[in-house]
Amino acid sequence: MKVLVLGGDGYLGWPTAMYLSARGHEVAVLDNGVRRTYDAELGSGSLVPIASMADRVKAWHEVSGKRITNIHGDLMDADVVYGAVRGFEPESIVHFAEQRAAPYSMIDRKHAVYTQVNNVVGTLNVMYAIGEIDRDIHLVKLGTMGEYGYPNIDVEEGWLEVTHKGRSDRVLFPKKPGSFYHLSKVHDSHNLEFACRVWGLRVTDLNQGIVYGQQTEETALDPRLATRLDYDAVFGTVLNRFAIQAVLGLPLSVYGAGGQIRPIIDIRDTVDCIRLACENPADAGEFRVFNQATEAFPLREMAKLVADTHPGGAQIEHVENPRVELEEHEYSFAHTALESLGLVPHLLSDTLLTSMFSIIEQHKDRVDLDALKPTVDWRRASNDSSAKAGTTA
Amino acid sequence: MKVLVLGGDGYLGWPTAMYLSARGHEVAVLDNGVRRTYDAELGSGSLVPIASMADRVKAWHEVSGKRITNIHGDLMDADVVYGAVRGFEPESIVHFAEQRAAPYSMIDRKHAVYTQVNNVVGTLNVMYAIGEIDRDIHLVKLGTMGEYGYPNIDVEEGWLEVTHKGRSDRVLFPKKPGSFYHLSKVHDSHNLEFACRVWGLRVTDLNQGIVYGQQTEETALDPRLATRLDYDAVFGTVLNRFAIQAVLGLPLSVYGAGGQIRPIIDIRDTVDCIRLACENPADAGEFRVFNQATEAFPLREMAKLVADTHPGGAQIEHVENPRVELEEHEYSFAHTALESLGLVPHLLSDTLLTSMFSIIEQHKDRVDLDALKPTVDWRRASNDSSAKAGTTA
Repeated sequence: MKVLVLGGDGYLGWPTAMYLSARGHEVAVLDNGVRRTYDAELGSGSLVPIASMADRVKAWHEVSGKRITNIHGDLMDADVVYGAVRGFEPESIVHFAEQRAAPYSMIDRKHAVYTQVNNVVGTLNVMYAIGEIDRDIHLVKLGTMGEYGYPNIDVEEGWLEVTHKGRSDRVLFPKKPGSFYHLSKVHDSHNLEFACRVWGLRVTDLNQGIVYGQQTEETALDPRLATRLDYDAVFGTVLNRFAIQAVLGLPLSVYGAGGQIRPIIDIRDTVDCIRLACENPADAGEFRVFNQATEAFPLREMAKLVADTHPGGAQIEHVENPRVELEEHEYSFAHTALESLGLVPHLLSDTLLTSMFSIIEQHKDRVDLDALKPTVDWRRASNDSSAKAGTTA
Repeated sequence: MKVLVLGGDGYLGWPTAMYLSARGHEVAVLDNGVRRTYDAELGSGSLVPIASMADRVKAWHEVSGKRITNIHGDLMDADVVYGAVRGFEPESIVHFAEQRAAPYSMIDRKHAVYTQVNNVVGTLNVMYAIGEIDRDIHLVKLGTMGEYGYPNIDVEEGWLEVTHKGRSDRVLFPKKPGSFYHLSKVHDSHNLEFACRVWGLRVTDLNQGIVYGQQTEETALDPRLATRLDYDAVFGTVLNRFAIQAVLGLPLSVYGAGGQIRPIIDIRDTVDCIRLACENPADAGEFRVFNQATEAFPLREMAKLVADTHPGGAQIEHVENPRVELEEHEYSFAHTALESLGLVPHLLSDTLLTSMFSIIEQHKDRVDLDALKPTVDWRRASNDSSAKAGTTA
């Protein structure tokens, strides 16, 4: 199958592109490289060194004998999107190409506006390209479990059967997201559901949990095939960050009470979920939502697990929560759709953590400790906090 | 009370500004005049001649002895928004300043993107200005009943109590909007609910039905105080359009079967709803939603009422529906919040229709018949249908 991976230069886009290529799919990646410019803006970077996109596809060819087509371009430019769809003629489009950090979107007004415009318009452009060029193209769109927030009812997979005053309907699951980033994905989901209704598009919205891990079968083949590992307070995801703090001998920083329950998924499951979604497309007109997370833990339990597994142990500290959120709550979410398509989850294990510690150990001299401190405050509304997020205290 | 009316040059913004001014409030309007440029783009215009914004405020002073401050500027420019909020120091901000036509948003990709970016970013800028400058400012934001779509459960006022698998929560009422315009208001609502949660903003989201009528007490005082009346297929709202077709001796064009039930409201009630919302602000942190519509009719019944009331009668024709929507459905919506604050609705009456016929009669030579034909097709996805919407067949 021909698969176009939007955002193929990112933490998950690159491993996904190789994973699909290794399994016989014809893959093209499209990326504007902006994730690397956020590093420059924030004075941060990947803990693991990463090759340029050009070197990555070259290395992939050397290692696997397979080719990945590399397209440089920005989804905000509709000509780029239309050109890629007309030129490559994909059967599936996997869409990772959004600004994906909640703290980045909360830096100030400019970053909030950037995040929402970039994500929503990029997705609109993809929808229109599919709607105009070939409505059979299956769009596999990355959403987030954070779209739902933490309601006091079970989180279903995108839709909810409601009976109210004697009548019933199947409605989109109500959303209560926790940042302007998460909101951008809510906006995308609503736009996409509409496009399925009026244009008959085929869409799978993957509401992904927090991804952890850094290696897949393919990234491990050659250092030039490595994917990024973010440790900073803006782009670093929580479990990765705890592992890095443990290796550095720093206390694991739990925001607030730590009763916040987060759905999570191993990076090796993410790439397989994408494959399963592509190989089992949504029907024409179907807005299909899968919850792409395999288990959930309170933050303080994740920290304890990391501390208990790390050979040298680790302290746990509770820092002031920069986010506005419930710190103790119930949480239950459905995640049967991908498993029913064949996903066999890698659950969080000592083995995985031990392998992460070893990767981190190799590169720990690359860490800038300042980048670990949370400086973005959800309670603050600022037009322009200028320069780097590190100055938004 | 000091009230800043965003979009104060529009169909409803201008009558609202005068209505509030007449009732003792200190009013400023902010508008970029873009509604008038849509006319130029579409080759259409108001049936009733309208004065420039400068002439309007001058005439209002002559007629009433009261001053309305006139600020020219675009909400997309955060400096304009921050400047107006700092300079005028409003206690309430009434926000009409969005692209408000569903067909306009469906012309092509460019118009969809324009509508969503303009509406969402304008509102984000207003939210940030309030969040940074003065969180006590009450934002009265115009939404639309179209955010809900036409679910098979009763439409409540913004929120829904749900019990699911033994647990309960109060959630945002699920949305199923019918155009990229309606979607932009859904996006706004989600952004605003979040800002209430994290910044403690006071927000009233007014989900307005389709407004009909052209006169309020104030617009009738002087021809220079008139508000616009749109008759074209892009900006003309349905009941106004039927009245105009009747006067012109044209058949009233009902889209599809005409069983589509539309919530409606008289323009005189709209302006009073805004007053009631301003004078009874939302609590700090409260995202309050009122359904600003007073009754609902199927399209074919509205057409029949107009035909029966018009002295010369009128034919009714069913044309192919350019929209993708249910043409027969149940519909029930709550609308008690504004009535409990004191709204005494003007229900649709022969008297109102007769007065509209007379206004239309005076200006019927100004109609461009071409502009009445629906040319925007919901089923079509086009990158750029160029020039005027009239060419998008």
